[in-house]
Amino acid sequence: MPETVVNTTPSNSSTASPSRTVLLLMRVLTFVFLLIALILIATLKQTDADTEEQIKFSDFYGYRYMLATIIIGFAYNLLQMAFSIFTVVSGNRVLSGDGGYLFDFFADKMISYFMISGSAAGFGLTVELGRGVPSNSFIDKANAAASLLLIGFVFTAIASTITSFALPKKAN
Amino acid sequence: MPETVVNTTPSNSSTASPSRTVLLLMRVLTFVFLLIALILIATLKQTDADTEEQIKFSDFYGYRYMLATIIIGFAYNLLQMAFSIFTVVSGNRVLSGDGGYLFDFFADKMISYFMISGSAAGFGLTVELGRGVPSNSFIDKANAAASLLLIGFVFTAIASTITSFALPKKAN
Repeated sequence: MPETVVNTTPSNSSTASPSRTVLLLMRVLTFVFLLIALILIATLKQTDADTEEQIKFSDFYGYRYMLATIIIGFAYNLLQMAFSIFTVVSGNRVLSGDGGYLFDFFADKMISYFMISGSAAGFGLTVELGRGVPSNSFIDKANAAASLLLIGFVFTAIASTITSFALPKKAN
Repeated sequence: MPETVVNTTPSNSSTASPSRTVLLLMRVLTFVFLLIALILIATLKQTDADTEEQIKFSDFYGYRYMLATIIIGFAYNLLQMAFSIFTVVSGNRVLSGDGGYLFDFFADKMISYFMISGSAAGFGLTVELGRGVPSNSFIDKANAAASLLLIGFVFTAIASTITSFALPKKAN
């Protein structure tokens, strides 16, 4: 009788509800910020006024790594949002039991580490590239992409904190 | 009667013991790796053969940030080891009750984020500095310091996972 089990624990599901709503909000916010960061970095190019050579983000390893972490974070949040929609529609969690909590915990932790490393690598490179050079759109766009990734990381770190505090539930 | 309470729960303290030992081992390993990284980055300098100008780590913002994160991680692990020694000597946790578990959880999480960001900023800069340049001791040492910081981060991330799984204990 799985239905009655669900029905007899209204207090449990109602206490879990606010944190799950905040969690979904964090994932949607991360998704939006990473989408803008993705567009910014993908369109990052500049033609040198003197040599007419074109500089692209892919000329720098640091920006390639940053793009990789943005794509990883983007794909992960897309997956989690799909899981949430499935849960709302079907009423069941995609990964039931302990597996779901453990997956959320480890995935949020790893993805947040990837995101901050990508942002830091981007900033570490941009700060050095931009030193002594007059402000230009290439540096500004790269800075903006790294900043958006950093903001996305903060939301994912909050999500990771929520899924860490949800770990005790797996014992139930 | 706090003594009798401790004595009547031998099973509880023995189950907690392995993870606390692993936790202490992770902190000692992090401490050792960060100490070597600290020495490497602090001694990072090179005299240019042509111009006789001396290049130091502090000429690069990325390496300054990396040094800052190494010092933060180093100081934190020193503090945690001091807490552990106090616990062994006195038999009491420094932060008793929920506070200790919450402090460990949030501190490990934040410090591990700092450490990976420092390592990524260092790598992001070093990879670009070293491109097209013949192998030299400055780049090699900077790479080694970033690698040691990354290894230290892995140990702290494991410690952070252990302290996350210890969160359910705070409810007891």
